[in-house]
Amino acid sequence: MTNKDARTPASVQDEQSEEAGKSIGWHKAYVEGTRPDLRVPVRQVHLTNGQSVTLYDTSGPYTDPLVDTDVRRGLPPLRENWIIARGDTEEYAGRPVRPEDDGIKHTSPRGGLRNLDAVFPGRPRQPRRGRDGEAVTQLAYARRGEITPEMEYVAIRENVSPEVVRDEIAAGRAVLPANVNHPEIEPMIIGKRFLVKVNANIGNSAVTSSIEEEVEKMTWATRWGADTVMDLSTGRNIHTTREWVLRNSPVPIGTVPLYQALEKVDGRAEELTWDIYKDTVIEQAEQGVDYMTVHAGVRLAYVPLTANRKTGIVSRGGSIMAAWCLAHHKESFLYENFEELCEILAAYDVTYSLGDGLRPGSIADANDEAQFAELRTLGELNRIAKRFNVQTMIEGPGHVPMHKIKENIDLQQEICDEAPFYTLGPLTTDVAPAYDHITSGIGAAMIAWWGTAMLCYVTPKEHLGLPNRDDVKTGVITYKIAAHAADLAKGHPGAQEWDDALSDARFEFRWEDQFNLALDPDTAREFHDETLPAEPAKTAHFCSMCGPKFCSMKISQDIRREHGGTQAEIEDGMAQKSKEFAASGNRVYLPIAD
Amino acid sequence: MTNKDARTPASVQDEQSEEAGKSIGWHKAYVEGTRPDLRVPVRQVHLTNGQSVTLYDTSGPYTDPLVDTDVRRGLPPLRENWIIARGDTEEYAGRPVRPEDDGIKHTSPRGGLRNLDAVFPGRPRQPRRGRDGEAVTQLAYARRGEITPEMEYVAIRENVSPEVVRDEIAAGRAVLPANVNHPEIEPMIIGKRFLVKVNANIGNSAVTSSIEEEVEKMTWATRWGADTVMDLSTGRNIHTTREWVLRNSPVPIGTVPLYQALEKVDGRAEELTWDIYKDTVIEQAEQGVDYMTVHAGVRLAYVPLTANRKTGIVSRGGSIMAAWCLAHHKESFLYENFEELCEILAAYDVTYSLGDGLRPGSIADANDEAQFAELRTLGELNRIAKRFNVQTMIEGPGHVPMHKIKENIDLQQEICDEAPFYTLGPLTTDVAPAYDHITSGIGAAMIAWWGTAMLCYVTPKEHLGLPNRDDVKTGVITYKIAAHAADLAKGHPGAQEWDDALSDARFEFRWEDQFNLALDPDTAREFHDETLPAEPAKTAHFCSMCGPKFCSMKISQDIRREHGGTQAEIEDGMAQKSKEFAASGNRVYLPIAD
Repeated sequence: MTNKDARTPASVQDEQSEEAGKSIGWHKAYVEGTRPDLRVPVRQVHLTNGQSVTLYDTSGPYTDPLVDTDVRRGLPPLRENWIIARGDTEEYAGRPVRPEDDGIKHTSPRGGLRNLDAVFPGRPRQPRRGRDGEAVTQLAYARRGEITPEMEYVAIRENVSPEVVRDEIAAGRAVLPANVNHPEIEPMIIGKRFLVKVNANIGNSAVTSSIEEEVEKMTWATRWGADTVMDLSTGRNIHTTREWVLRNSPVPIGTVPLYQALEKVDGRAEELTWDIYKDTVIEQAEQGVDYMTVHAGVRLAYVPLTANRKTGIVSRGGSIMAAWCLAHHKESFLYENFEELCEILAAYDVTYSLGDGLRPGSIADANDEAQFAELRTLGELNRIAKRFNVQTMIEGPGHVPMHKIKENIDLQQEICDEAPFYTLGPLTTDVAPAYDHITSGIGAAMIAWWGTAMLCYVTPKEHLGLPNRDDVKTGVITYKIAAHAADLAKGHPGAQEWDDALSDARFEFRWEDQFNLALDPDTAREFHDETLPAEPAKTAHFCSMCGPKFCSMKISQDIRREHGGTQAEIEDGMAQKSKEFAASGNRVYLPIAD
Repeated sequence: MTNKDARTPASVQDEQSEEAGKSIGWHKAYVEGTRPDLRVPVRQVHLTNGQSVTLYDTSGPYTDPLVDTDVRRGLPPLRENWIIARGDTEEYAGRPVRPEDDGIKHTSPRGGLRNLDAVFPGRPRQPRRGRDGEAVTQLAYARRGEITPEMEYVAIRENVSPEVVRDEIAAGRAVLPANVNHPEIEPMIIGKRFLVKVNANIGNSAVTSSIEEEVEKMTWATRWGADTVMDLSTGRNIHTTREWVLRNSPVPIGTVPLYQALEKVDGRAEELTWDIYKDTVIEQAEQGVDYMTVHAGVRLAYVPLTANRKTGIVSRGGSIMAAWCLAHHKESFLYENFEELCEILAAYDVTYSLGDGLRPGSIADANDEAQFAELRTLGELNRIAKRFNVQTMIEGPGHVPMHKIKENIDLQQEICDEAPFYTLGPLTTDVAPAYDHITSGIGAAMIAWWGTAMLCYVTPKEHLGLPNRDDVKTGVITYKIAAHAADLAKGHPGAQEWDDALSDARFEFRWEDQFNLALDPDTAREFHDETLPAEPAKTAHFCSMCGPKFCSMKISQDIRREHGGTQAEIEDGMAQKSKEFAASGNRVYLPIAD
C-alpha cells in the first residue's frame, strides 16, 4: 500500500508540478499497467523528509486538477474500449424510460415517454448487454483463465499479482462489480484476500433530499474513501437520480431494485409482481448499476420465525417481501424466479448482493433461527448464481453483541462457499442512538478481521434521521478506520507501512506529515491548531498535551541517540553512554524557557 | 442494571414529584441499603408505557435537584461516619502545604506557607490516616471477612451480593478505590466480575487551562458516565486544582504523583529524589487521591530495550523515570523504595495503579520485549503490594493491532494474579489522528470483553491537543459504548435489559423513550429533530429514514399481530391468518397519505 522510498518509482507518473503537489502535501498520481489506457490512481503523500507514501485512492478524477470534470457531462468512460474490445456485448434500443420510473403517476400532467438522453443529456448512449450465448461476467472470464484489464487494474491497486485476482474471482471468493453499462468506474475488488472495503449509502426518501444532494453525497463519500456507494432512493426521481449518480461515479453503484418496484405499485407490497420487479431490474441494469441487493432468501416459511422477535424484521426489503408472502400466502417470487433473475444479471455483469432481509435489529434478536434459516437459503442461491456465472456476495447483520459476531462470519463462509461477506456493522449495543457509527464500527472492525470483505457504513444518524454531508463523512472515516484496523490484524501486505509512516512522523515531530498522512488531514490540522494555532507550533518539538518540559517523545529521542544500535551494541555501550549522558549536563528536555 | 417492572420497587425512593420527573423523562432515585445513610443513586427512566428502567448513575448529587450543591463548599462527606466508626484511623496535623506544591518558585513574592483551609476554604479539615498497626484498606477488611458499608454500596450498584464484592476484593481481583481522605465519593468497584468502568482524564498543563475548567470537566465527565477521573495537571496550581476537584468529586480521583514531583524540581528529571517523590505522595494522599499511577516497573535494564522502537517511550511517567535511570545509571528509585511506598499508600487506602511506562506508542511497537519485561515486573510489584494490603490494579497499553490485543489481557491476568487490568484503549491503528476515540474504542471494547476491568478514555484530541468540553463528552460516551458492549459480551447480569428496553421503544415507535434511554439523550433528540422537527413526528409511527410508506418496523408489527404466539401456534394458525390478512385489504402500511 505504501512506498517509503525517497525516489519516485518509474511506474508512478507524476502529472502535477512539484509546486502544486507540495502546497497541499499530496497529489494524485497514476501507476500505469501493461497498456497506456490502464492507469491506476494513487494518492501520493509528500513528506517533509523527502520521502513519499503512496495510498489507495477512491476519489476518482475529481481530485485530479488536470482532469476537467463536469457533472452534466459525466466522467470519462474509462472502461468503454475494454468492454467493446471483448466483442461479446452489443448495444440495443433498451427499455423505454417511463414516467413511473421516476415515481410520476400515469395521470400526471408531466407524464409521457422519456429516453435516457433526456434523463441525462450529457452523453447520449444506448444500453449494452451480452450477446446471446456469451458469458460476459468477470467470473466467466476468470473461470476461463482470462485476465481482464479490470483484473489487472485491481491487481495494481491491491499490490498483488493479476493471477491472484483472477483466481479469487474464479473461486467465487471475490467479486469485481462492473456492469458493462457503467464504464466510468475505476475497477475495485471485494474479497477477504484483499483490502477490506467500505460502502456508503446515499439516497433520497419520500421525506427529504434532492438529486443534486445525492450526487454531491456520492462524490463526497468517495473523496473520504468509500469504495462503493449504494443509492437507496425511495422517493420521486429515483430513475433520474440514479442516472446522474452513475454517470458521475468512479466507484461501483449498488441498489435495492425492490424499493423502486414498490414505488411503481404505490407502496402496496401485495401488488408487487415478478414482472414489475424484473422490469425494474432490467431498467437499472441498463443504467449501469453494478450490484443489486436481492432479498430472495426471505421465504414464506421463515416469516413466522420473526413473530416473537424483539424488533421483528428491520430490513426494508425483508419486510416488503415478508408482507408480500403473507398477503398471498405464497413462496417469494424472488426465490421462485431466481434462475431467470440470474440470466438477466449475467447479461450485464451485475453482481448479486444477496440481502439479509431477516437480519437482527436488536441485540436480543442476534443469531436467531430466522436469521440463520435465511443464511442457509442464501448459500443455496449463491450456488445457483455461480451456475449462471453471476458474481455474488452475501449480506450480513445488523445488531450483534461481540461474543456472537464470529459465529456469523464463520457460518457464512461455510454455508456460502467463502463468497464475500458484506456486513452492516454489526452494532454491538442498542443503547447509543446518535453514536451508532461507533457501536457498529467496533463490530465492523472485528468481523472484517475475521474475514468480512466489505463493510456497509453506519452514520451517526442511524435510527434517527437521514445523514447529511457531515454524517456521511463521519460514517466513511469511521469505517475506513475499521477496515484498516482489520487490514492490520489480517497482516495485509503493506498495511502497516501507512501506520509506520505516520508514527515516524509523530515521533520526529513532523506535524505537517502527520496531518497529510491522516485519514482526515483537515480535522487533524484543525484540532491541533485549536490549542496551538501559531505556525511555529507545527515545527515545534513538543505538543500541547505535555508542553515543552515533559515531552516523552523528546526523552525517547535522547534515549535512541544514546542507545541506538543493535541490542548487543546497546548493552555493551550502556555504562559508557550513561557517563557521557551525565557529562552532557543530563539535559533531556529541550532548552525552552518556561 | 435495569428494572422493567411497572411498579417502583419498594427499595427505590423517589424523592421528586411525579411532575418533575416526567418533564425530563428521568429522575434521580436512591436505593437504600441496610442503614439509612447508605443510599445508592440510580437514574430512573420513566417510559411512556408506564414502565421504568433503572440505570447505573455516576453523576453524583449534581443531578439531584433536592441537593443544594456549591463548588465552594464541596460535596457532603458521605463516607465520613463510616470511616470514623471503624475507629482505625486518626486525624493529624498533616504536612504543611508549601508554595512549591502549586508550582510557585521559592523566590516568588507570592511565597509563604499556606494550609488546606486556604487552599479550599469551604470545609476546614485535617487529614486522616491509619493508626499505627492498623490495616485500613478495603483489601484488609475483605481479607478479614468484613463487609464494609462501601462494599454493600457497590453490591447494590452492581446488583450482586455483598459477599461477591468482598471476595473479589479479598482475592485481589477487584479494587474499591476509597482514600480515607476522600469521604465525598460514592463507592464504586473495578474488577472483571463487575460492570466495565471508564476513566476520564482531565488536567491543566503548562500550556493552557484553569482550575475552574478542570472542576467543570470533572462534573461534566461524570455526568456522562465517567466512573473515575484522573487529574493529570502539570502546570501551575496543581495542588489547589486537585483540592477543588477532590472536594467536589463524587467519583474516585486518580493522579500521577511523578508529574507534580517533577514540577518541584523544575522539570529536571535527574534532580528527582525518593524524598521529593515520597513527600508528594503524602501530600496527595492527605488531600484524598484515591489511586495513584506509579511507574515503578520502568527499570534501568529495560530502557535500552526501547532504543530501536518506532516511537520509543510515549508514557510521560515512563520517560521521566527512564531519563532518571539513564542520568544516574541507577535502578529506579520507585522500584528500590517500593515497600516503603506500599506502607504510605496503605495508611490512607490509596490504590496502586501500576503504570505501564513502556507501553507501545505505535502499532509497530506493540507487544514487544520492553512492554512485556515491564509487565513481568508489575506482576512482582503487585505481589509485594498485596503483602502490604494495598489494593492494586495494573495499567495496560496503548497502541495494539486487533490480533495482538488478547495476548495483552491474557498475559496480564496470568502474570498479575488476575489483578484488575486498566487499559488506555488500545488504539487499533495509528492513521486516524482526530478520531482516536474511535480507533481506541474498538480496541477498548475487545479488551474489556476479554477481561479488562477499567478503560481509560481517549478523546478526539489525542495526539493533537488538549480536550475541551465537547471532546470530554465524546470520549466518555465512546468509552461507555465500549464498556457496555463488553458487559453484553460478557453476559453481565442485567446488561441486556437496557438494550431490550431501548429496542422495545424503537419497535413501538416510542421516540421519547428511545431518547431518554439513550446514552446521550440530547444528541439523539437533536439528530431526530434535524430531519423531522415537528412535535407530532415524535409520536409518528415511522421515521425519516424510510418515510411513512416503507416502514419495516410497521410491517413487522403487523406480522407480530398476525403471527404472535408460540412457534406451534404460529405454524398452526398461519394459513388462516393469511386469509384474514388478505381480507383486511392487505394494508401493511399506515394509512398516511403521501
